[in-house]
Amino acid sequence: MISGIMDDTIKDYQLAAWLMAVCWRGMTIEETTCLTDAMARSGQVLDLSQIGPVVGDKHSTGGVGDKTTLVFAPLLAAAGIPMAKLSGRGLGHTGGTIDKLEAIPGFKTDLPIDKFISQVKEIGAAISGQTPDLAPADGKIYSLRDVTGTVESIPLIAASVMSKKIAAGSNLIILDVKCGRGAFMETESRALELATTMAHIGEALGRPVSAVVTDMEQPLGYAVGHTLEVMEAIETLKGNGPEDLTELCLALGALALTSCGKAKNELNARHELERLISSGLALQKFAE
Amino acid sequence: MISGIMDDTIKDYQLAAWLMAVCWRGMTIEETTCLTDAMARSGQVLDLSQIGPVVGDKHSTGGVGDKTTLVFAPLLAAAGIPMAKLSGRGLGHTGGTIDKLEAIPGFKTDLPIDKFISQVKEIGAAISGQTPDLAPADGKIYSLRDVTGTVESIPLIAASVMSKKIAAGSNLIILDVKCGRGAFMETESRALELATTMAHIGEALGRPVSAVVTDMEQPLGYAVGHTLEVMEAIETLKGNGPEDLTELCLALGALALTSCGKAKNELNARHELERLISSGLALQKFAE
Repeated sequence: MISGIMDDTIKDYQLAAWLMAVCWRGMTIEETTCLTDAMARSGQVLDLSQIGPVVGDKHSTGGVGDKTTLVFAPLLAAAGIPMAKLSGRGLGHTGGTIDKLEAIPGFKTDLPIDKFISQVKEIGAAISGQTPDLAPADGKIYSLRDVTGTVESIPLIAASVMSKKIAAGSNLIILDVKCGRGAFMETESRALELATTMAHIGEALGRPVSAVVTDMEQPLGYAVGHTLEVMEAIETLKGNGPEDLTELCLALGALALTSCGKAKNELNARHELERLISSGLALQKFAE
Repeated sequence: MISGIMDDTIKDYQLAAWLMAVCWRGMTIEETTCLTDAMARSGQVLDLSQIGPVVGDKHSTGGVGDKTTLVFAPLLAAAGIPMAKLSGRGLGHTGGTIDKLEAIPGFKTDLPIDKFISQVKEIGAAISGQTPDLAPADGKIYSLRDVTGTVESIPLIAASVMSKKIAAGSNLIILDVKCGRGAFMETESRALELATTMAHIGEALGRPVSAVVTDMEQPLGYAVGHTLEVMEAIETLKGNGPEDLTELCLALGALALTSCGKAKNELNARHELERLISSGLALQKFAE
């Protein structure tokens, strides 16, 4: 089916009918995994093995004030986990990381893939815009979902996110599934279902995933708006961030460090991350 | 929505998604009635009042060997109920009445509407091919259902059949919903649901409908094939038809006669219909 979508032998109306059937009937985890795999292989699949044995990536389902990546990526890089993150723009009412980074004058958000990889090798972290060469089937499917009322389906959301993560080549994937009135998943049960689905797909496709469900009943931190959010991220890297954002960054970071064996347990991981903040090393990585 | 389908402002992919949603979620009887009404009014709606106060029509959901209309129309015409039937060609594995009539050399199945009406006035019965001017929205919707796996939905089937019946202008509509392994509706419960839905639509739109659910576990009569079926219909009009076909024609005819007050009860109606057969009057109407 994905080949047919890519070479236009499957018509939009047939795909639209199928998407609506999935919305109401769901898919098994095996079906969702096969779909994700085919979508990931519909374009280029990055090989990041030259960076090192562990390469981290992080994805949030989005929420107002969510500037977590701006803190998380340099913090993990400072902890010795290379972070290779391809990020999107805002969808719906939430801003995207790329939009926020563009508030920094001169910041380049469209690195070519070779430059992106070499920056991860040199600095330990890169965040760049999603390229159309990765999982192009997702782009085609998403644009049809957008105009046929078929966006809000857990297997379709899971396949969309995970196909891009898998094509992007990392092997330590941290997912932050937002839950609440300000999130796409309003209820905890739906957020848990999405998180579990994505974790199962990652496991089945040999890309370990750690997922958390976090609160989005209100904006994260105090700052909302691209420039203000970058400023708040910097304050957080200095140790002066709002409590909720700081706690989320430490929790996600500890999960990453324990998942790949960089820390023995959550307590050790948190101590290390707090040290990287108080010493200024995480902030220095952001500046690099 | 029907206006948008007719002027192409609603895209095929949006309609396809909607059709699939209806397949899985259904529609209320009010929604189905509104859809039917809009589809009926998407083209010409025939005014048959010049024929008389009662004009009959009959529809079968189709089955192998179903040549009932070839007997029913002249039989009812002989009983004094004018029959104005626009009929379709075969769908799927069942033959259509128009296909069967074309087995008669020289038989015209594409009468213009004015000629169709004048023939009903003169002879008491006409059967002609469906014109594209009646319920054209149904044609557009059906061709999309055919390629998107959305044919088998009771509200969509009911709206399709009833929109054409309503546009065709009759006011005594007899529906024969086939049920069994040889029919589109395999189970009695689905056949009853379709019959009930169509009857409710007719009632709501001021076109009284009488519907029966009849057996299609095996072909109707013995003859299968256009020419053979016409021959068997003629034998039935002579009183020599197979028992099942004869019984179905008498049952449907008695329903029509009692529905419009032409007969006091079913027994009287059956006696009259049997008389029209044994006297040769029904056969004479067929010849006309």
